[in-house]
Amino acid sequence: MAQPIKRIGVLTGGGDCPGLNAVIRAVVKDAIFHGIEVMGIEDGFLGLIRNRIRKLDWDDVSNILTQGGTILGSSNKANAKRFYVGKDENGEPRFEDVTDRCMEHYKEHKLDALVVIGGDGTMSAAAEFVERGVNCIGVPKTIDNDLVGTDLTFGFQTAVQIATDALDRVHTTAASHHRAMVVEVMGRNAGWIALHAGVASGSDVILVPEIEFDIDRVCKVCEDRGRKGKRFTIVCCSEGAKPKGGKQVIERTDPTSPDPIRYGGISKLVADEIEKQTGIESRYVVLGHVQRGGTPVAADRILATIFGDHAMELLKNGKFNRLVAWQDGGLTDVPLMESAGRQRTIPEGHHLIAAAKSVGTDFGA
Amino acid sequence: MAQPIKRIGVLTGGGDCPGLNAVIRAVVKDAIFHGIEVMGIEDGFLGLIRNRIRKLDWDDVSNILTQGGTILGSSNKANAKRFYVGKDENGEPRFEDVTDRCMEHYKEHKLDALVVIGGDGTMSAAAEFVERGVNCIGVPKTIDNDLVGTDLTFGFQTAVQIATDALDRVHTTAASHHRAMVVEVMGRNAGWIALHAGVASGSDVILVPEIEFDIDRVCKVCEDRGRKGKRFTIVCCSEGAKPKGGKQVIERTDPTSPDPIRYGGISKLVADEIEKQTGIESRYVVLGHVQRGGTPVAADRILATIFGDHAMELLKNGKFNRLVAWQDGGLTDVPLMESAGRQRTIPEGHHLIAAAKSVGTDFGA
Amino acid sequence: MAQPIKRIGVLTGGGDCPGLNAVIRAVVKDAIFHGIEVMGIEDGFLGLIRNRIRKLDWDDVSNILTQGGTILGSSNKANAKRFYVGKDENGEPRFEDVTDRCMEHYKEHKLDALVVIGGDGTMSAAAEFVERGVNCIGVPKTIDNDLVGTDLTFGFQTAVQIATDALDRVHTTAASHHRAMVVEVMGRNAGWIALHAGVASGSDVILVPEIEFDIDRVCKVCEDRGRKGKRFTIVCCSEGAKPKGGKQVIERTDPTSPDPIRYGGISKLVADEIEKQTGIESRYVVLGHVQRGGTPVAADRILATIFGDHAMELLKNGKFNRLVAWQDGGLTDVPLMESAGRQRTIPEGHHLIAAAKSVGTDFGA
Amino acid sequence: MAQPIKRIGVLTGGGDCPGLNAVIRAVVKDAIFHGIEVMGIEDGFLGLIRNRIRKLDWDDVSNILTQGGTILGSSNKANAKRFYVGKDENGEPRFEDVTDRCMEHYKEHKLDALVVIGGDGTMSAAAEFVERGVNCIGVPKTIDNDLVGTDLTFGFQTAVQIATDALDRVHTTAASHHRAMVVEVMGRNAGWIALHAGVASGSDVILVPEIEFDIDRVCKVCEDRGRKGKRFTIVCCSEGAKPKGGKQVIERTDPTSPDPIRYGGISKLVADEIEKQTGIESRYVVLGHVQRGGTPVAADRILATIFGDHAMELLKNGKFNRLVAWQDGGLTDVPLMESAGRQRTIPEGHHLIAAAKSVGTDFGA
Repeated sequence: MAQPIKRIGVLTGGGDCPGLNAVIRAVVKDAIFHGIEVMGIEDGFLGLIRNRIRKLDWDDVSNILTQGGTILGSSNKANAKRFYVGKDENGEPRFEDVTDRCMEHYKEHKLDALVVIGGDGTMSAAAEFVERGVNCIGVPKTIDNDLVGTDLTFGFQTAVQIATDALDRVHTTAASHHRAMVVEVMGRNAGWIALHAGVASGSDVILVPEIEFDIDRVCKVCEDRGRKGKRFTIVCCSEGAKPKGGKQVIERTDPTSPDPIRYGGISKLVADEIEKQTGIESRYVVLGHVQRGGTPVAADRILATIFGDHAMELLKNGKFNRLVAWQDGGLTDVPLMESAGRQRTIPEGHHLIAAAKSVGTDFGA
Repeated sequence: MAQPIKRIGVLTGGGDCPGLNAVIRAVVKDAIFHGIEVMGIEDGFLGLIRNRIRKLDWDDVSNILTQGGTILGSSNKANAKRFYVGKDENGEPRFEDVTDRCMEHYKEHKLDALVVIGGDGTMSAAAEFVERGVNCIGVPKTIDNDLVGTDLTFGFQTAVQIATDALDRVHTTAASHHRAMVVEVMGRNAGWIALHAGVASGSDVILVPEIEFDIDRVCKVCEDRGRKGKRFTIVCCSEGAKPKGGKQVIERTDPTSPDPIRYGGISKLVADEIEKQTGIESRYVVLGHVQRGGTPVAADRILATIFGDHAMELLKNGKFNRLVAWQDGGLTDVPLMESAGRQRTIPEGHHLIAAAKSVGTDFGA
Repeated sequence: MAQPIKRIGVLTGGGDCPGLNAVIRAVVKDAIFHGIEVMGIEDGFLGLIRNRIRKLDWDDVSNILTQGGTILGSSNKANAKRFYVGKDENGEPRFEDVTDRCMEHYKEHKLDALVVIGGDGTMSAAAEFVERGVNCIGVPKTIDNDLVGTDLTFGFQTAVQIATDALDRVHTTAASHHRAMVVEVMGRNAGWIALHAGVASGSDVILVPEIEFDIDRVCKVCEDRGRKGKRFTIVCCSEGAKPKGGKQVIERTDPTSPDPIRYGGISKLVADEIEKQTGIESRYVVLGHVQRGGTPVAADRILATIFGDHAMELLKNGKFNRLVAWQDGGLTDVPLMESAGRQRTIPEGHHLIAAAKSVGTDFGA
Repeated sequence: MAQPIKRIGVLTGGGDCPGLNAVIRAVVKDAIFHGIEVMGIEDGFLGLIRNRIRKLDWDDVSNILTQGGTILGSSNKANAKRFYVGKDENGEPRFEDVTDRCMEHYKEHKLDALVVIGGDGTMSAAAEFVERGVNCIGVPKTIDNDLVGTDLTFGFQTAVQIATDALDRVHTTAASHHRAMVVEVMGRNAGWIALHAGVASGSDVILVPEIEFDIDRVCKVCEDRGRKGKRFTIVCCSEGAKPKGGKQVIERTDPTSPDPIRYGGISKLVADEIEKQTGIESRYVVLGHVQRGGTPVAADRILATIFGDHAMELLKNGKFNRLVAWQDGGLTDVPLMESAGRQRTIPEGHHLIAAAKSVGTDFGA
């Protein structure tokens, strides 16, 4: 039989996401209630590498439920297997495997398990420690809601609400000025935020990575609306939306950038093309980081709390190396690496796409 | 085979609820797209009784997605079987069965079906027309989320968000003044709003109708918190919360009222009792109608849109006398009268109660 | 010449008000920048009486700008001249003058001045210490914006925004249900919040303490609107609104209460009377403490910051016993006791009353 | 003596701004109350050129107080003196003076005066009609609050609130990820929005067009904060912020654009430079059009209402060719062309700059 858990570590990895603190709070409060000590590991796995680990008490997690960000800090890239340690004599970056060092810190703090809150990358990093015998529970985190194995992740609904509020605001400008307004929301590989915010705001066109769009069709929507007396068009566009293959009318603004789409490329290009083809004045807005910070909506605070609670349930029951999940309207859990290297994209025929089409929304294809 | 639907009526009955207009919009836009005409019936079944029925076009439902309330108006009590028609010579109220008159209006407008958006009472009224051969599709509506047959109703998440925002605001006052603050939210028979808003806001005590509370225990929570250095307590309380049976320490403010609990009774009484028993300064707030008006949150606009869309799917497929529903994370439908006379209350051992307890929330029992 | 200020105390007294923390932050940051130490006195003058005084550093005031409430705590009633110290043998309350004790604590902590943030009562308490030679700077605080000597106080605009948001929400319910909705906002002696929120929300009737209202006229407004096809009426009502003298159609709900108007009396009574006289279904909401907590709007954060900054300017220039003020669109200061025992009520012919009337708003008189 | 006003026209020109509808509503309601008819001219002066003019009744302005945008539509460039009428045989643009045509439409509709709501450009266009004997009243409109002659314009406080909300959100991301975040707000020539939102959000650096900034100093602020244990920096930056003259370390992204600064140039460049010089991960967000649409905050609804009311006062009193204004905390009016060709920029030593510096904010110079 598994020995009882006496002390655990908790860390947050990857990008900011409303609800991280709510998970930490739930984990710490539940643990303390059950006589388990919690050590907070700072800045994701970087804290395990650098031994920046501190005890978390009840007071540390009071009043953090409503706060965005993470009190533990985060890091995007820390990887114990391949940790950047400076440059060699030729100016080339040098990497080391610091897993042993991490294990020493893990043992030094007498940890019995880790609660790892993060996305795909963070779970992959965790999997390496599982191989070394560490007990891990994963809590899935992605603003984009694109992790395989869970229907819903915290932070997503906050992002949708923020995007919807912005689309509502832009709507009045578009209508007053008879413009096309293109609003770019997060979502590189999956268009969940665009789809939800687009439906919630009644956008006329929604462009998502899953459906390659035809810019001519988007222009035609703008013109058709004009003919019906609607002198404006709202386009809600994922950052990862892609123009149709063979006919790439849209060019990158900055072709030398290693990540050219990152800086609001697609919405600017869609807006420019609409204005060029139709003569309709067009503007774009890239919501960017505003979508992933700040206080979570109520639904995300709740989801994050029950995710944290379920992580502790698994842990107390010795059910390790599982990823907390939400499926079919209920709490469950899946193997830790369930989502590794895969993305949950919008399936063809999703009911929200059908509903959007039935109220007149166009997907540019 | 069923004859094709050419013209339908739509009405909204019962209390205000954010998302009603989003359903109407989805129904009208989908119908027009499929060549079906939509007639709007004003003020619930009252419009069918009085023949206040008008055509709804695309423009009528433009820009209503973001609006609270219902463009069709609503009425709480209109009942065709027993319609109030004034007083008799003795001053007694007189009622008539006006179902025949309604059927005439239904035929006069050449309606092939009704989309009925409402709660328990509205569905019961619809059922009477089903008996007369009217094709009905029901769309469930309740701010309280307590209809049997569907896990989720639109408007509920907006109410939870508004209540959570209010609890957040009250929190700072409580902490600054070392007070107990009791916030009363909607929910006469089911405590869903209190449970969700209480968890989302990190309330210290949650009182719901499903769990009779012991006022002494509530007072003890306030005192225990004081001992731990927390000099304030937040109580989130359903309007229908009930003190424990045999030991009713709490009295009604206005015992002559036919509905004494209605006007913020319970929160005032809890606050008064805390102050009396513990000496801790206590205040209460009754959120009331603020919870059920105004623009819906994104999630409710989406849910209302897909409910409206599904109603049209059922109707186009000749699948009548069904109630649109959300179950296990997906769209479905149930018999129209599924929820008649029953209420979906919080079951014992619900995961949100468990999660709330694990972060230290008390349910007063 | 005055000796330089080396160490000051700061305290917050009276009711909660968004912006208190912004003032504390501005005082502490400015002081530290100029080499002045700041001691935080807890719970208003109670902290001076009980010697609960602690050093405030830069980190103590980081991240508090956006927070409602006060990190120092507050107390409503602490009065050094007449401090409640328990009951005597006959069960009568006993009071002592503890001013000497306060002066000892003031000297023990080597304070050179006090920054006193509060309302009328707090300034009166401060004045007693001025007589004992303490250098005081007052920063005016009132949610009601009714202090003589300053055109604007922080917290007021947040309260107006919260009330306006609530009125917006209630508006859709009123319109959908053809109701009169009465929303009660703060303001016992002055109707500034009701006037501003009423104009901002387009309320049909505004009732303020400065203008005694005729309930018959209010009912007539509801009926006249009905005749014009507007089937609902929004009444924005100060908690201190008063029915016309000789003709008190309105009775108190709880005549035994020492402060009967306190618990939402007036709005319930207005709503009941409208329903009784006109037959129009009527509802009321008392916003209560929701108005005075939570994060301040941008304008209040700014006003609080410049008030704190000006307090330090006065102090550094040895200009003591002044109250920071905002007059004619600019910063200034007035004698500390400028507002003692007086209230800034809405003057007859105020431009906002004129503007409200010109868009059709009725003041019930 | 001037003949009484019987019928007026109202138009909105220039960019979108929250509060436009509130002005229109106040003008129409006040006019109707005084027996004056109001004709709405669509899309600014374009409606006068094209004779798109329609009567505005009470119902047209019901429920628009809370709406962003303008029900009349707007146009940025319509100029009667130099109206674009297509291209000549050589493909060159042709312009005509259509003032006579406008005067015909003015007379055709029997207008006695115009209420012109707009900025600098709109007032200049109005001035040309004043020369032709048209009675004009101007209502100043600019989101940037940079019109000479008035201390405050509606829409500005809404923009400040939106920017502050975004800065609050970005704050948590910056703190969690130890980043510098640069948020770009509106303000090409005047930095009022950046100054107000920067102070309201507690930004660490504020960059405005009035104070040329030294990028090295901005980088130093980031580094100094790191040394003090603050591992993030928030920069609030006007779109028109300018790096110091001789030492233009910052280059434009798109040097071929006629308006290169327009597309979020400066914030990207500041962020890139911080990352390059300091190694601190940096991100930027351009809020763009989100700032100028949507429902106005309460303060802007009020200001817009009293501006509309005052416009009607002037008009009813035959005081023509005046611009409504807010000065020294009160309503007033100035000559129509008071602000022509000038901008109200932040003066040196403004109290808000002083206050910002006293709480530790840096202006990069």
